[in-house]
Amino acid sequence: MSHKYVYLFSEGNGSMRELLGGKGANLAEMTVLGMPVPQGFTVSTEACTRYYEDGKKIAPEIEEEIYANLAKMEEINGKKFGDKENPLLVSVRSGARASMPGMMDTILNLGLNDDVVAGMIAKNSDIKFVRFVYDSYRRFIQMFSDVVMGLAKSTFEVIIDEVKEKKGVKNDIDLDADDMKELVKLFKAHYKKEMGEDFPSDPKTQLMESVKAVFRSWDNPRANVYRRMNEIPYSWGTAVNVQPMVFGNLNENSGTGVAFTRDPATGERALFGEYLINAQGEDVVAGIRTPSHISKLAEDMPEVYKQFADIANRLEEHYADMQDMEFTIENGKLYMLQTRNGKRTAAAALKIAVDLVDEGKISEDTAVLRVEPKQLDALLHPQFDAKALKAAKAIGKGLAASPGAACGKVVFTAEDAKAWHENGEKVVLVRLETSPEDIEGMAAAEGILTVRGGMTSHAAVVARGMGTCCVSGCGDIKMNEEAKEFELAGHVIKEGDYISIDGSTGNIYGEAIPTVAASISGDFDRFMKWADARRTLKVRTNADTPRDAAQAVAFGAEGIGLCRTEHMFFEGDRIKAIREMIVAKTPEARKAALDKILPYQQGDFEAMYRVLEGRPMTVRFLDPPLHEFVPQKEEDIVELAGELKISVDELKAVIAGLHEFNPMMGHRGCRLAVTYPEIAEMQTTAVINAALAVNKEHPEYNIVPEIMIPLVGEVKELKFVKDIVTSTADKLIAAAGSDMKYHVGTMIEIPRAALLADEIAKEAEFFSFGTNDLTQMTFGFSRDDAGKFLDAYYENKIYENDPFARLDQNGVGKLIKMAAEGGRKTRPDIKLGICGEHGGDPTSVEFCHNIGLNYVSCSPFRVPIARLAAAQAAIKEKNAK
Amino acid sequence: MSHKYVYLFSEGNGSMRELLGGKGANLAEMTVLGMPVPQGFTVSTEACTRYYEDGKKIAPEIEEEIYANLAKMEEINGKKFGDKENPLLVSVRSGARASMPGMMDTILNLGLNDDVVAGMIAKNSDIKFVRFVYDSYRRFIQMFSDVVMGLAKSTFEVIIDEVKEKKGVKNDIDLDADDMKELVKLFKAHYKKEMGEDFPSDPKTQLMESVKAVFRSWDNPRANVYRRMNEIPYSWGTAVNVQPMVFGNLNENSGTGVAFTRDPATGERALFGEYLINAQGEDVVAGIRTPSHISKLAEDMPEVYKQFADIANRLEEHYADMQDMEFTIENGKLYMLQTRNGKRTAAAALKIAVDLVDEGKISEDTAVLRVEPKQLDALLHPQFDAKALKAAKAIGKGLAASPGAACGKVVFTAEDAKAWHENGEKVVLVRLETSPEDIEGMAAAEGILTVRGGMTSHAAVVARGMGTCCVSGCGDIKMNEEAKEFELAGHVIKEGDYISIDGSTGNIYGEAIPTVAASISGDFDRFMKWADARRTLKVRTNADTPRDAAQAVAFGAEGIGLCRTEHMFFEGDRIKAIREMIVAKTPEARKAALDKILPYQQGDFEAMYRVLEGRPMTVRFLDPPLHEFVPQKEEDIVELAGELKISVDELKAVIAGLHEFNPMMGHRGCRLAVTYPEIAEMQTTAVINAALAVNKEHPEYNIVPEIMIPLVGEVKELKFVKDIVTSTADKLIAAAGSDMKYHVGTMIEIPRAALLADEIAKEAEFFSFGTNDLTQMTFGFSRDDAGKFLDAYYENKIYENDPFARLDQNGVGKLIKMAAEGGRKTRPDIKLGICGEHGGDPTSVEFCHNIGLNYVSCSPFRVPIARLAAAQAAIKEKNAK
Repeated sequence: MSHKYVYLFSEGNGSMRELLGGKGANLAEMTVLGMPVPQGFTVSTEACTRYYEDGKKIAPEIEEEIYANLAKMEEINGKKFGDKENPLLVSVRSGARASMPGMMDTILNLGLNDDVVAGMIAKNSDIKFVRFVYDSYRRFIQMFSDVVMGLAKSTFEVIIDEVKEKKGVKNDIDLDADDMKELVKLFKAHYKKEMGEDFPSDPKTQLMESVKAVFRSWDNPRANVYRRMNEIPYSWGTAVNVQPMVFGNLNENSGTGVAFTRDPATGERALFGEYLINAQGEDVVAGIRTPSHISKLAEDMPEVYKQFADIANRLEEHYADMQDMEFTIENGKLYMLQTRNGKRTAAAALKIAVDLVDEGKISEDTAVLRVEPKQLDALLHPQFDAKALKAAKAIGKGLAASPGAACGKVVFTAEDAKAWHENGEKVVLVRLETSPEDIEGMAAAEGILTVRGGMTSHAAVVARGMGTCCVSGCGDIKMNEEAKEFELAGHVIKEGDYISIDGSTGNIYGEAIPTVAASISGDFDRFMKWADARRTLKVRTNADTPRDAAQAVAFGAEGIGLCRTEHMFFEGDRIKAIREMIVAKTPEARKAALDKILPYQQGDFEAMYRVLEGRPMTVRFLDPPLHEFVPQKEEDIVELAGELKISVDELKAVIAGLHEFNPMMGHRGCRLAVTYPEIAEMQTTAVINAALAVNKEHPEYNIVPEIMIPLVGEVKELKFVKDIVTSTADKLIAAAGSDMKYHVGTMIEIPRAALLADEIAKEAEFFSFGTNDLTQMTFGFSRDDAGKFLDAYYENKIYENDPFARLDQNGVGKLIKMAAEGGRKTRPDIKLGICGEHGGDPTSVEFCHNIGLNYVSCSPFRVPIARLAAAQAAIKEKNAK
Repeated sequence: MSHKYVYLFSEGNGSMRELLGGKGANLAEMTVLGMPVPQGFTVSTEACTRYYEDGKKIAPEIEEEIYANLAKMEEINGKKFGDKENPLLVSVRSGARASMPGMMDTILNLGLNDDVVAGMIAKNSDIKFVRFVYDSYRRFIQMFSDVVMGLAKSTFEVIIDEVKEKKGVKNDIDLDADDMKELVKLFKAHYKKEMGEDFPSDPKTQLMESVKAVFRSWDNPRANVYRRMNEIPYSWGTAVNVQPMVFGNLNENSGTGVAFTRDPATGERALFGEYLINAQGEDVVAGIRTPSHISKLAEDMPEVYKQFADIANRLEEHYADMQDMEFTIENGKLYMLQTRNGKRTAAAALKIAVDLVDEGKISEDTAVLRVEPKQLDALLHPQFDAKALKAAKAIGKGLAASPGAACGKVVFTAEDAKAWHENGEKVVLVRLETSPEDIEGMAAAEGILTVRGGMTSHAAVVARGMGTCCVSGCGDIKMNEEAKEFELAGHVIKEGDYISIDGSTGNIYGEAIPTVAASISGDFDRFMKWADARRTLKVRTNADTPRDAAQAVAFGAEGIGLCRTEHMFFEGDRIKAIREMIVAKTPEARKAALDKILPYQQGDFEAMYRVLEGRPMTVRFLDPPLHEFVPQKEEDIVELAGELKISVDELKAVIAGLHEFNPMMGHRGCRLAVTYPEIAEMQTTAVINAALAVNKEHPEYNIVPEIMIPLVGEVKELKFVKDIVTSTADKLIAAAGSDMKYHVGTMIEIPRAALLADEIAKEAEFFSFGTNDLTQMTFGFSRDDAGKFLDAYYENKIYENDPFARLDQNGVGKLIKMAAEGGRKTRPDIKLGICGEHGGDPTSVEFCHNIGLNYVSCSPFRVPIARLAAAQAAIKEKNAK
């Protein structure tokens, strides 16, 4: 038996989503439930895959199968395709496994031709009906030409305008049956002129070309972008649904509408939606007439309303989830055209999940699975006022680097951001790229916009940590820093001008759009408790300041997985001491400079330990190359030379000596500790003394410091640095008369470390996977430079996701698995975690759960997301057993 | 039974080199052979390892074992340690597994103290003997103080000078017995003053402290440097040999000497060496008296000479290799103190190996194993005149980046190098670092000296390819390019001054040292034929020009494993077309520029194919980031803007757009082909058309082009580029009416590609491991930046070898093995090769053989080295079976 590619609605059911797509599966399910669904068939997603495999051709056996099902559909509906007496008209609609609203193509009224139209009119010559028939015909020609043949819809609109002008009317509604007939004639002539052949009159040809067009639309640019944004694999393909037309625009006893079983914005339980009398679906969308609220249907057509409300109830009960439905009423009879789980806001998602549990319809497990972890972001960050946003138009787009919305006056330097902020101004900081020196300015800004750098650039990482909105890597911006202005798509924005940026979409607006603050409802806590009760993966945070740490703890972080000490080096006076250390020529001079830094650093750690109240903290030792701490501009160098009391030439020589061809692969991480052991000594002293001090204040905290050595590639390298740490720490602890324990571990962020993890585990008490660097090294591209070519990779479907945002499970994941196994082989109780950006990405969190890591660590604002993702991973694992 | 750490000479034999060290094993072997060896014992290398494991302490049981063996030694020799009547005096000498001449410490005359001296004199009051005794005593105090206690030898020399001055004599020889006695007194007083305690008089204390000192000397800086240069693992440790003293300086019937069984410089078969009558070994080395040629001993002491010549013969026969022997004659009796396989020049090594085969002493297999592959280098490159070199003093040292010697006038730009060369001058090009634009100047220079960059910097790689001497990364040079001068260790070298550089040692000389040309003897061909007959690994070359290709073929290359097309882009006019391509704003403009490059590129490939005469060539598509092709200096930018007829600002914007944070991990390799498919199209056209044209000229060549896509990390990426290649190539081949085959493969140089090699092999017909990049990515450090910290890694023994010179078999090798297995799993007949710098490193070649690669590819001058290394690997594998 040959493979089956086409299914009547009556042959499917709701569980066949992979094969039939969401729409097709639900139409089949509604058919099973005995609901009034116009009976058609679904061409499966496998046919779509086959279409692409065959070089964009529909194989003859699939074509035959489609015609065979068409014949069954004719029989079921008692109508015949292309028949003058009793013609079958159909819609052809896409329907992928995941809902992709508006991304792919639809053709309505298919099956019309001159003969069919003549036959219909012959049976009913009512002038309104005649107008309806010709209107449907001209709509079909227009839609088919546009969608199937690529002849733009707008070229037909020009003809309509000409006809209206000739007649002296303004609206389509003012065109009568004859005008519509005339339009059909003109449209067909236009088609022939442009396409060099007659408009296809054979309904079977119309159908097959439309099916192909829907398959093709799977690969159109907007669908590709949507898929990437929503992480829908290209390989899934779309199904095609062929369904008899029902006409909401047949007469005043007809209509069409959409409705939700609960309010998709708030989650309130009540039918929510709107409808139009005597209209087709596209009229609702077009917005020329104002639809009525669904509740008004109870007055207009009480019987139909009752039937619909009953169906809606049954559907929600059946799916145990909020439904989003489309219906059409044809001459007083209700038809269901679609149902699906409704899209909803984060707040609604939470409320619906909690309510459904309270209503006894779903279990807590199911409720936890019902909320998209990424949606939680919207609850934690300010958003644009929805109305104001609707009226605004983006002038450009960058990367959605840190979520939330921001509106403020443009400033171009971190200093200005700080100064203006102190004067009470709300500012958006616009930079070519940010550097660690900009920290204070970044903290003062409502939002950050950068021209260069990707999702894991400095700006993006720091902004996410702070919970500040950030749009990064908008390469279209032409920056003129000297003139304090930039140009974007023809708009010149000067210092002090208002802009608004949306870190959740990447949109940039050249105007002020008011924002509304984040709000966490009472459902949130209850829901997150369910999640926490289910997850086994711990969730820590990446935080470098007491402020961030406190924020993360408030969001449920169970400790700090990554405290980057270098971020502490820029504040206030300490940067001067750092620079003294860098220009030091002897270990003694270096030690003297480090001695100045020590009290600051110890104070920082004490503050962190106090905020954490006994939760663990992994301190990573100095990581970035030293050139990040010295200025590069002439005037700054001159100034610094004066401060350091050395000659400008000497300082320049030091800075030149720090220059690196590839700083990401340069003198950084533990390599600094190997060349300058004094640094590791100072940092150990700071951590240990801080822990001793806070343990003394609060013996109940029982702090056990965790020291993490970065960028290790070889066990002897780790041992060398660890020896410095232990010899320093043991002395301090003994001198304090304490028996405090501490742990020394390492980042696994260099491929070699992953490959030799079994050896490294001999010295490391814990591994933390630094997936940012590990991704860079494994792919061999730098996150800061990859932006230039990754778009071409997405377009050509070489990669479908940004590997810096979503863990590459095939490649990088393989290394992580190898390392986890190697580490456990040597040290069965080794603690394994992840502290890259991926720690806050739901699919990556699921991967971490599945390979048995102990914790993930992510930026504070992603902690709730990671908690939920970890819970979902645990539930999925349980359900799979 | 406890572990045995100490062995009498009579308990060992020559095969116990790992345990007893080379010296100890050979002393034992000579003992077995019944030769006159003063009978002592060896403290094993395991005792050394244990010493370090125990925190630089000799464990009590080892101490006991040493004393027990001392007792046996006393019995064997009929003398007693510290005995007045019949004292045993001993030497304590290091002896590692591999010979490390002069790197570690020796103590002679151990066992002397005031009582022993008194006893010796009491038995023999001859004034010459008395002087000998006190001279020995003062030498011992001096040596022990220096070696064991760190009290510098020079501080004792001051005392000797004072005594000589007081007495009014000039030479040590003029000091009599009383003077020597006085010196002993003064030395002991000096020791007590400096060390705060009496000189140790207990012989057992002297012995144990000396053993420790030898162990310690394993870790001294010069030993560490020597080991790294000679790739001797730190973990081996050294043995210690304790042997009764015999005195060549006892009287005129005594003497000492060293001799080789063949001439170590030429390999001629004849006793070669020198000796001194009435002298100790150190006097031969000191060079105050001129030793006599060994043949003269036949006149001085005919019996002894006959005995020695006989022993020498037996030893060579026994070891079947040229021996390097030390002997001492005490009062007419010959003692053998050492024998070992003698160090020899490359020419001698070849001659000896071939002669020993002809003499029937060794097999061809053994002969092939007898020559160090790296030694061949010296046969292929000019060397300094040995005498002139002896008189010269290096003023600095860089990395030995490309072997050979060069002498010439200093120039600072590639243009000057070319111009001066054309005027008949020999020049050495001195640059901060070289770039591809310098190629012509580099080719014109005798040698290249750079301030920055490592063993695989541009300068190093290109120089090795050309066979030009290069010293790179001499960071001590203070460069003043504007003034056209540089300073090194206080020497100011101006343009036009002579310098000499040694690319085999890294030495830099501020003077002219004459060089002698490379000479390949007749033995070479015969020897290499033996090697070729044994190896299974093919050897190809990395060559980008017909000149290099011809050179490599002359050296036995079996094809080109890596033809880097970008090196062709800099010559003459083509760079202009490349730059037009870079500034092009549309695919059409880019194509127009590429059309200009095409004929050049095709011509290049035709020339290569003609030189190769049918040998295969793997062409790698464009690899470097495009910014390497544009100028960075203001004046050059202005000039280029004029040439390209665009504004300076526009050009600057293009150049700024090409800037990358980490160019090594940026927009390069096949990423260029993904963003600009036109480039791959042009390159395919050039390769295929060139092959078609040359096949037409020479059908017997039967060229099958091999196209290699670089920097692939994902199979879809390879497929994307391969599709461009095949669609372009198939059309051209069909149009030419040809049935030429071609292969498309990929570099494996990104860790992800190695991890997913099974998938990539679906599209790749061959893999070539690009171990330079693979090493960078796996270690996470850039070869250009690692120089800054790798020294600290060597010092701390974190790494013992430069991973860019010698393949890291543990880490990078693991990836290569995984990839080879993955590739073969998918495609059993996949061709596997290596084309990084490691292709010419003998241990790396052995690794490639062992994991079953098909070929290695290396720079032309390393081809003979790789051929020999491959043969040795095959023989070792056979022998191990």
